[in-house]
Amino acid sequence: MSEFLPKDHPRYESIRMREHLVDMVDAKVLAPEGLIAHGRGEAFDYLIGEKTPDCVLGPIRAAAAALLTAERPIISLNGNAAALCPEAMVELAEATGAKLEINLFYRSRERIEAITKLMEKAGAREILGTDEARQGQIPEIGSERKRVDSEGILIADTVFVPLEDGDRTEALVKMGKRVITIDLNPLSRTSRTASISIMDHIVRAVPAMTRAAIELKKLNKTECLTVLDGFDNDKAFAEALRFISARLKALAGDAS
Amino acid sequence: MSEFLPKDHPRYESIRMREHLVDMVDAKVLAPEGLIAHGRGEAFDYLIGEKTPDCVLGPIRAAAAALLTAERPIISLNGNAAALCPEAMVELAEATGAKLEINLFYRSRERIEAITKLMEKAGAREILGTDEARQGQIPEIGSERKRVDSEGILIADTVFVPLEDGDRTEALVKMGKRVITIDLNPLSRTSRTASISIMDHIVRAVPAMTRAAIELKKLNKTECLTVLDGFDNDKAFAEALRFISARLKALAGDAS
Repeated sequence: MSEFLPKDHPRYESIRMREHLVDMVDAKVLAPEGLIAHGRGEAFDYLIGEKTPDCVLGPIRAAAAALLTAERPIISLNGNAAALCPEAMVELAEATGAKLEINLFYRSRERIEAITKLMEKAGAREILGTDEARQGQIPEIGSERKRVDSEGILIADTVFVPLEDGDRTEALVKMGKRVITIDLNPLSRTSRTASISIMDHIVRAVPAMTRAAIELKKLNKTECLTVLDGFDNDKAFAEALRFISARLKALAGDAS
Repeated sequence: MSEFLPKDHPRYESIRMREHLVDMVDAKVLAPEGLIAHGRGEAFDYLIGEKTPDCVLGPIRAAAAALLTAERPIISLNGNAAALCPEAMVELAEATGAKLEINLFYRSRERIEAITKLMEKAGAREILGTDEARQGQIPEIGSERKRVDSEGILIADTVFVPLEDGDRTEALVKMGKRVITIDLNPLSRTSRTASISIMDHIVRAVPAMTRAAIELKKLNKTECLTVLDGFDNDKAFAEALRFISARLKALAGDAS
């Protein structure tokens, strides 16, 4: 599609990312609906100024501490996460000791295989959620996202579910798991329900989590748990909303 | 895709609209990138509460007055507009006397034909922008959206360009045309540059414009021009930003 895109377009980088995702649909990594989800993310990212807000550094650090101190941490991969930052997901898994598990709303064998291939190319050594014989179910979910690995998400104590839907976040929390999410929409059920919500773009937040994990590994487990216990998701959520609200108000002031 | 979607999903209607748009990609009406644009719209619509804010009623009325009082009004159709509300676009054209013209960022003969067919099915009698022999160009645009009908947008005094990109809005304004847009993102270049910006979902705003046009037709032209002259887009823009900002602040208050 790049033949259509003039290099001097003010949104060149953003449009290139879109075209990469369209290619990922052709490669079956992403469901077409994943493009719509990306658009929602773009809009919220635009609102926060397309950079990681300071108010998100706390959730990022808490998330890294949660993965590091968990007994059985899992990183859940959907099509968008795999398409946008496969290497960064592998690096986070390695830095925290979490395992990667594929979990899809629009689930098909073809997509699972395409994502597995992509993740292996990005350096992943073990990928859960691919063996139908080991399939378990999360209760109270109607969609295909209920299908999880019985040796992965089903028995995990901490699950990192970036770009998650609200149903599944709620169900995982109800199962007593600590749920970490990345969601640029601070009003979504996912953001409101998760134990730790990171309002940032996945391509920035995941490397930031990895850097935080590498720093936190210098502490002992008790110190890491202190970081985690000191975190208040409701307070962070309110701060995130105030951040966007203040940005809009400033822009409104400029315009009037 | 609906086999995946449980009917009790809290976002059922929204997901159905997404699936319709995915079908429209298969039908070549929509470019895959159009799905990403829809996602951006969804996000901003979510922020305004998924209904037409009161502060948008002024721009809607001014837009109807602009189309009614123009000498050569044109309604520009892209893939998303055609896919989302073909009948409403035809009704607006009929109520205002404006002509419909197809104009695409990812332009191809195949897409123009698919959209023409869709619009004819929706009741459109004349569609501009389909005859290559009559093609003109808007200066200063790199993308395919520069191609316009020499008997349509090129010579129009007022152009309604819902879901437009910033480049083309700027170029049309520079050509001295009155530009009306629908854009749920109040921070976009399109919203900031257009003569009249409507921050609302196209499926709600276009029927509202038609209703406003039918009301305004009861007035004489001088009275219509008074409606138009009394409209201040900068003021409306600032009001729209304050509306979203206040909504977020209230939500942040609830959460803290």
